[in-house]
Amino acid sequence: MKGFIISFEGIDGAGKSTQAKKLYQFLKQLGWSVSLYRDPGSTLLAERLREMVLESNLDPITELLMFESARSSLVWEKILPDLKEGKIIILDRFIDSTTAYQGYGKEINLGTVNILNHIACRGIKPNLTFLLNVSLERALQRLGGKKSRFEDPKYLKRVRDGYLQIFYSEKERDIFLILNVIIWWLLFGIMLLKKLKIS
Amino acid sequence: MKGFIISFEGIDGAGKSTQAKKLYQFLKQLGWSVSLYRDPGSTLLAERLREMVLESNLDPITELLMFESARSSLVWEKILPDLKEGKIIILDRFIDSTTAYQGYGKEINLGTVNILNHIACRGIKPNLTFLLNVSLERALQRLGGKKSRFEDPKYLKRVRDGYLQIFYSEKERDIFLILNVIIWWLLFGIMLLKKLKIS
Repeated sequence: MKGFIISFEGIDGAGKSTQAKKLYQFLKQLGWSVSLYRDPGSTLLAERLREMVLESNLDPITELLMFESARSSLVWEKILPDLKEGKIIILDRFIDSTTAYQGYGKEINLGTVNILNHIACRGIKPNLTFLLNVSLERALQRLGGKKSRFEDPKYLKRVRDGYLQIFYSEKERDIFLILNVIIWWLLFGIMLLKKLKIS
Repeated sequence: MKGFIISFEGIDGAGKSTQAKKLYQFLKQLGWSVSLYRDPGSTLLAERLREMVLESNLDPITELLMFESARSSLVWEKILPDLKEGKIIILDRFIDSTTAYQGYGKEINLGTVNILNHIACRGIKPNLTFLLNVSLERALQRLGGKKSRFEDPKYLKRVRDGYLQIFYSEKERDIFLILNVIIWWLLFGIMLLKKLKIS
């Protein structure tokens, strides 16, 4: 496995998808070999499962298993082959979303969530995770009129707090808490320039 | 939980579905409150997942997670409410199918299969399991011209041997190996008559 996985995480309305896309385009313009996937999604099966979850009102355990099925399909069909080719893989959501939403949000046992994440991922983890932090007010405001199944503020608060718990507890992983996107891009640019000079 | 779960297991062509249906009709005629479900299936979601698995050529882990999603939906929507009502639940396949087909057949780690079975079932297990044994030759003959995804004889042999392993190893469960269906019905009839006399 020579590739590199970068995941973007955060509550709905935090701006993950936008930043993931920007980073993808930026690295692509630099001539790097990059893939961008959304999880759940990005394979035929995973997109169908995503739709089925969104249109149903499933119990939390079934929902969790459906998301893990979708993730397993993404890992098997896209991520593992990309890793072998040495690509940079940018993910709009990944395992931490399940821990935050299904674990902290829907209060499923965290051990259960971790085991399922591990099984679906065949043990791989992101090499780098950017957690976009945003206040609940700001997120709800950004989501605006968009009907979201995640719009219950109490639930969203548990998810947001859950993300911070992940950040503080998973010390062995490289998780960066992004409080300001512009400052992040400046730092990221400097980091990259340094890397390009060195290599 | 006052209900009672009876599962029928065995390789394709062993005659599970036929016997499950016969038992269902028999108990219903006796005036008992009985449900009959097939797993995967019997809920809107589970039937769709079943179809998706059958029409795709999924990797073993994704297939396992899809089957467990279907099972979780069946347990949540049908089996748990039935158990509360004190019904007898007859299942055409259940957890042992996953252990035999995905575990022994597709050689997924048995610990992984057991954990997923446990999560999807919320810890419930069948109270009684009838394992219909049939020779590979007989099963393949019965399946006849039917194109089956399970028709590879080597794979089917691993599954059949796996079922016998389950029978010999899960001593704490009530699993009955059925070698002859007619004798089984005779014994079952006597058992039932005794129970009806006592109660």
